[in-house]
Amino acid sequence: MSKGTVVLAYSGGLDTSCILVWLKEQGYDVIAYLANIGQDEDFEAARKKAESLGAKKIFIEDLRKEFVEDFIWPSVQANAVYEDRYLMGTAIARPCIARRQVEIARKEGAQFVSHGATGKGNDQIRFELTCYALYPEVKIIAPWRIPEFYNRFRGRKDLMEYAQKFGIPVPVTPKAPWSMDANLMHISYESGILENPKSQAPPDLYLMTKNPADSPNEPDVLEMEFRNGVPIKVTNETNGISKNAPLEIFSYLNEIGGKHGVGRIDIVENRFIGMKSRGIYETPGGTILLKAHLDIETFTMDKEVRRIKQGLGIKFSELVYNGFWYSPECDFVRHCIAKSQENVEGKVQLSVFKGQVYILGRESPKSLYNEELVRWVNFLGNVCVCLESSCVRLTPEALWAGSALTKVGKKPSIWLSIST
Amino acid sequence: MSKGTVVLAYSGGLDTSCILVWLKEQGYDVIAYLANIGQDEDFEAARKKAESLGAKKIFIEDLRKEFVEDFIWPSVQANAVYEDRYLMGTAIARPCIARRQVEIARKEGAQFVSHGATGKGNDQIRFELTCYALYPEVKIIAPWRIPEFYNRFRGRKDLMEYAQKFGIPVPVTPKAPWSMDANLMHISYESGILENPKSQAPPDLYLMTKNPADSPNEPDVLEMEFRNGVPIKVTNETNGISKNAPLEIFSYLNEIGGKHGVGRIDIVENRFIGMKSRGIYETPGGTILLKAHLDIETFTMDKEVRRIKQGLGIKFSELVYNGFWYSPECDFVRHCIAKSQENVEGKVQLSVFKGQVYILGRESPKSLYNEELVRWVNFLGNVCVCLESSCVRLTPEALWAGSALTKVGKKPSIWLSIST
Amino acid sequence: MSKGTVVLAYSGGLDTSCILVWLKEQGYDVIAYLANIGQDEDFEAARKKAESLGAKKIFIEDLRKEFVEDFIWPSVQANAVYEDRYLMGTAIARPCIARRQVEIARKEGAQFVSHGATGKGNDQIRFELTCYALYPEVKIIAPWRIPEFYNRFRGRKDLMEYAQKFGIPVPVTPKAPWSMDANLMHISYESGILENPKSQAPPDLYLMTKNPADSPNEPDVLEMEFRNGVPIKVTNETNGISKNAPLEIFSYLNEIGGKHGVGRIDIVENRFIGMKSRGIYETPGGTILLKAHLDIETFTMDKEVRRIKQGLGIKFSELVYNGFWYSPECDFVRHCIAKSQENVEGKVQLSVFKGQVYILGRESPKSLYNEELVRWVNFLGNVCVCLESSCVRLTPEALWAGSALTKVGKKPSIWLSIST
Amino acid sequence: MSKGTVVLAYSGGLDTSCILVWLKEQGYDVIAYLANIGQDEDFEAARKKAESLGAKKIFIEDLRKEFVEDFIWPSVQANAVYEDRYLMGTAIARPCIARRQVEIARKEGAQFVSHGATGKGNDQIRFELTCYALYPEVKIIAPWRIPEFYNRFRGRKDLMEYAQKFGIPVPVTPKAPWSMDANLMHISYESGILENPKSQAPPDLYLMTKNPADSPNEPDVLEMEFRNGVPIKVTNETNGISKNAPLEIFSYLNEIGGKHGVGRIDIVENRFIGMKSRGIYETPGGTILLKAHLDIETFTMDKEVRRIKQGLGIKFSELVYNGFWYSPECDFVRHCIAKSQENVEGKVQLSVFKGQVYILGRESPKSLYNEELVRWVNFLGNVCVCLESSCVRLTPEALWAGSALTKVGKKPSIWLSIST
Repeated sequence: MSKGTVVLAYSGGLDTSCILVWLKEQGYDVIAYLANIGQDEDFEAARKKAESLGAKKIFIEDLRKEFVEDFIWPSVQANAVYEDRYLMGTAIARPCIARRQVEIARKEGAQFVSHGATGKGNDQIRFELTCYALYPEVKIIAPWRIPEFYNRFRGRKDLMEYAQKFGIPVPVTPKAPWSMDANLMHISYESGILENPKSQAPPDLYLMTKNPADSPNEPDVLEMEFRNGVPIKVTNETNGISKNAPLEIFSYLNEIGGKHGVGRIDIVENRFIGMKSRGIYETPGGTILLKAHLDIETFTMDKEVRRIKQGLGIKFSELVYNGFWYSPECDFVRHCIAKSQENVEGKVQLSVFKGQVYILGRESPKSLYNEELVRWVNFLGNVCVCLESSCVRLTPEALWAGSALTKVGKKPSIWLSIST
Repeated sequence: MSKGTVVLAYSGGLDTSCILVWLKEQGYDVIAYLANIGQDEDFEAARKKAESLGAKKIFIEDLRKEFVEDFIWPSVQANAVYEDRYLMGTAIARPCIARRQVEIARKEGAQFVSHGATGKGNDQIRFELTCYALYPEVKIIAPWRIPEFYNRFRGRKDLMEYAQKFGIPVPVTPKAPWSMDANLMHISYESGILENPKSQAPPDLYLMTKNPADSPNEPDVLEMEFRNGVPIKVTNETNGISKNAPLEIFSYLNEIGGKHGVGRIDIVENRFIGMKSRGIYETPGGTILLKAHLDIETFTMDKEVRRIKQGLGIKFSELVYNGFWYSPECDFVRHCIAKSQENVEGKVQLSVFKGQVYILGRESPKSLYNEELVRWVNFLGNVCVCLESSCVRLTPEALWAGSALTKVGKKPSIWLSIST
Repeated sequence: MSKGTVVLAYSGGLDTSCILVWLKEQGYDVIAYLANIGQDEDFEAARKKAESLGAKKIFIEDLRKEFVEDFIWPSVQANAVYEDRYLMGTAIARPCIARRQVEIARKEGAQFVSHGATGKGNDQIRFELTCYALYPEVKIIAPWRIPEFYNRFRGRKDLMEYAQKFGIPVPVTPKAPWSMDANLMHISYESGILENPKSQAPPDLYLMTKNPADSPNEPDVLEMEFRNGVPIKVTNETNGISKNAPLEIFSYLNEIGGKHGVGRIDIVENRFIGMKSRGIYETPGGTILLKAHLDIETFTMDKEVRRIKQGLGIKFSELVYNGFWYSPECDFVRHCIAKSQENVEGKVQLSVFKGQVYILGRESPKSLYNEELVRWVNFLGNVCVCLESSCVRLTPEALWAGSALTKVGKKPSIWLSIST
Repeated sequence: MSKGTVVLAYSGGLDTSCILVWLKEQGYDVIAYLANIGQDEDFEAARKKAESLGAKKIFIEDLRKEFVEDFIWPSVQANAVYEDRYLMGTAIARPCIARRQVEIARKEGAQFVSHGATGKGNDQIRFELTCYALYPEVKIIAPWRIPEFYNRFRGRKDLMEYAQKFGIPVPVTPKAPWSMDANLMHISYESGILENPKSQAPPDLYLMTKNPADSPNEPDVLEMEFRNGVPIKVTNETNGISKNAPLEIFSYLNEIGGKHGVGRIDIVENRFIGMKSRGIYETPGGTILLKAHLDIETFTMDKEVRRIKQGLGIKFSELVYNGFWYSPECDFVRHCIAKSQENVEGKVQLSVFKGQVYILGRESPKSLYNEELVRWVNFLGNVCVCLESSCVRLTPEALWAGSALTKVGKKPSIWLSIST
């Protein structure tokens, strides 16, 4: 008799294939769940493989659109960057994947979910906190933390032998000397030869971005249009190509960013438990978006609101990095950040070239930038204003009024009247 | 009889030349003070001009070394960036210039200082707050805020006429359609045609950095060595050139950064009084340093200390931008930040290429990165540890101990003992 | 011909009576506006006085209800305390008064507003920032900053002479040797003999609270009920008296707090411009509310949300103290704080006695306190849990799950399942 | 043969007496360590009991002085309050106790330390993090987390039986229906009948403070003198009693605070893991000190430094509550806070009466309060300043200068000169 049904986050790789078979061996019915969040994968081959291994059902879910809209977009609004550099492509993917997994578990009446996350800390936490938050009664089977499993599979060799024994197709290409995590947002590279923080990344490591040295000698010039702090349109001014659906916009930014080698970083970061870890990341589209959003945000947001929101963005990044996307505090912070974006609207012109993103200009109907005011203040401070033969100086009243008026983008006529 | 002695911050340009003569006209003795903070200037010509205009004494002071050591270095320690983008090359220069000016005023027994800062807000505030902080009894003469002056000089034409009348040499080259502020750290461009936030900067605007499109097709690879959070040596691994005095290091970074087009930004920023302003900046050496320092800092600093210090760095940037370098709160924040840098030590390898700085690797005797620990934790989480035939799991004790140990860079032998 | 119409914030006192007449003298039509925000005042006498002085119209507006609902309630939600001690009774009254004043000005077609605020800094700023924010085109006449006025009235003697000359009734009681500001929230005392920070407040200074030494020897025991972080009902358990409308609730808390001498403080605070100032305050009802709200908030709010909200509350207090109630940043912060209060609901029992408020207990349908969980965790940590003959220990999974579950107030059954 | 030596934190109570015997049973040599941190205890009886139970050595250490100087004083400097209300008397005692325990372990060559902390979370963490931080190689034996122990002792009954069997003296007084933790700083009460957050504390619960209802009808008036943010002298102005050594000062404040019923609170707090817990505390001396320090600090510290320091104090409180006294981040924060206290110096007069502390006045040689300046600014803003027949107004320059000058406590003569 079955012990119950498990929804297994299945990748098609050696580890989760062995886990699938092992779970069956333990007496569970296994539903294989494979999330398409933009990684380069042969999903049909994975389906066939899962079938052949005895999965009761197989769900291959295209989550790319919701990944962009529900996870990347809020991160763009937050200018989410962990420890000043990492754009968190992995951290924001985990709650997206786990959210659907527990939806499937609920729908299919499964009491269990399972994953092949190793115990390096961040990912299992991100995954499981999402599951508990959205389906508190669920039971999580984490084989790499179960003695019966890890005693049996003490290394890759054990997995290979098990695979051969149970007819699990074995990968023929040799494993890269590092590990990778890929999705629409980024590819991360870590472990293996990269664990030595001094050893440089080999040039052929990167899969998503071209080497800037080999990238085109002509820039692409884009116009990004934002509303509510998220992009609603991107136009390539070089060739007129234009996109306006979230997934299409983001994919196009990846294409352009990748073509010009944008978004490569090599960092040491602090993991959840305090341990330092070296990671190499490429985040082409996300990097373009971060720069463009920073620009339109500063252009349209009140200075002091921006300061408060900046602090909330840093908090958001810490929470998301640590796996707390679905938590009361992250809900709260996301709500506040979204509120701050109501007027973040307008167009940014930028050039993408040789690994860099250059902001060229911006415009907005909601701008708090007042060109007339700039001229007027420059003039006022510089040479003074003479009005009705009475000289105006910057009095405290004018300063106070000025601050208030600047904020609402008003013309400074009032300054004159109060100061004469 | 003289009204007293004024130390005038003199640039050699039309404005401050007119101010010099006008101050004499008003009955003051004028000491001309010209600070060399790395701008491209003919200081001897300026000296002769001041002499010819009747300056009582002339001080041309080379402040480049102290600008680097006392102002740029603390900003590097702070990762000082205003509103996520601006490295504040102008903001940190003002207190440096004014500090020497009031030293001269004290030494020469001058009761007055004067400057030609226009009333755009930030710079006059930065300048005058420094003067009041370091020489509270000083009296500041700000001609552009004095009716007798600004009524007389209502535009450039008035200045030109005055110059001709009093034999002040008049500039022959036409004025650029924007204003500039240059020093060792950066050049800023604003006003004029740049006031329209949408209009793009002309390609020939930049003086300090090469256009990345025209920059070399080969990178320079540098090794930066840090101690106490500031660079103590830079070595070009491409050609063996090496620098180890602060001014030489920073100048060399400017040279390399400039050669490869590093550090150009086009932003809209929020000024002190809340008004938005568009500025274009190039900060070649400072940009390289920021990236390198961020890397070695994260590598050597405890995670939680880093979070607290990050907040202090943001505060520091706001204070410095707003002119409060010499204030109790900025003293306090600088003290705290300096304390945080005691272990920020080690070497960063980086590549400078086509406008970008790529971190390649890092090493440090004070690193909290523990390669052995990384492997061990990966292993522990992954496959478990078997020790004396007893399986170890990540218990809460291990997590607590791990956090503590990781922080001090200790080997995790204790984990084993407490968990078995 | 009239220069236009001024809405004057009129108090009925000597200063604003003189200002009323002086404004007429200057050629303005004057509308007298007197806000009732709970101060002890003979409003009808003030009306008659204004009439006799030639006010074109007189508005005596009872703002007490909106003062409580729109200004005190948001401050309660924020736990608003400036510099750890001051509950800001004056700071929150200013925007309330000025808001109605500009409403009247708009309705009556007046282009001007005027006030008698002296230049001590905080109040004129709070007043005028509100006016500019809500009626940017308004022109503010601040007589105490106008040379024609302050040259004429160089002291109280000049005002008295002017009053006699123009038939303005002169106060007969001698002025107290300090100044006062009274409203529903508090009375503040400062200046005069209180300027010496060492001299103690005379015992007869306080008007709103009884001396705790003379207060009743029996406490009043109250039950405060909250919803959305504001009180919706107060019941005196001693005598069954109950109130449930905002103004009645707050007035009753003032009565009880006043009776028991609650809310007296003597502090030195930092004013807007940085100058320190000594103030003595009594805030009876506000103090009870602060304590009760802190208790129900901690009881019902997630720990981490609370930490973030605590920071926002400190920001809110700074903004309000400095006069920025109507500013984009304060709107933003208020919105975020209100969001955090959605589950702040329940009842607090407290005792008011001899100047103190003692929390006795609390209960809430939205509580995150889980008595069963408390017992269970105590038990779990203490003696361990034996289930199906397998011992459970607090594993990392349990800790993570526990955090998540505790937050949603769930029972920890899941802990058992994942840990066995 | 011995398994090694354990230093056991021994209280003399039933639990740790059983642990002592059980450790011997397991083959360890046991050193009993009893810290005197001010709790009411018969230390000699405890020594005899430990001897009779077979402790190899017994250390009874009077840590009261170092508890005050090294733990309470830094908390006073920080205005340390957890979640706006709890003064953390337990949290700061744990690192003090554990610090000496590992000192003894090192000195005696013991590889093990042990404690009887139950698994309620906070205390075992605080204890063990200190041990690991100061003696990373130490091995911790936490019996209540060891199956062999907790399986044997499933309740109080098992402990009693074990005690009888091994001749351990059994307590004759019945256990209170709550648990207590007492030291010089406070007594805490929790668990048992207090777990219901609505049930009120029984009146006879408190041991350290008198019921305010029964407290004297006359206040004690104290003068507290501070230097570097800590008290250096307390004088009772009522009777001339004076203390000036740290332990004597703190003990005297406890006496006075206890006599007048100061420092009782009933709260629900958020524990480390997020669970809410109800606690009742009495902190008489600590409460007086907090109020007095807040006053002298605001009086002597620059406004903006205070804001930054306030944030660091909140961080400090979170860290200490969570057990991270000995951590890099807490070291850093303590260093910064201590720096901020350099000018926190002067005398505060206060009255202690019926559960309350009333600040009466303050004075300081380092005060930034400038009575002359207060008068001058009031005058300036109010009626204007006439000087040499020229009227001065508050110009922006004056405001800037004023901010700067106020901070350094200077006289505002400069304002006149720049503004006329």
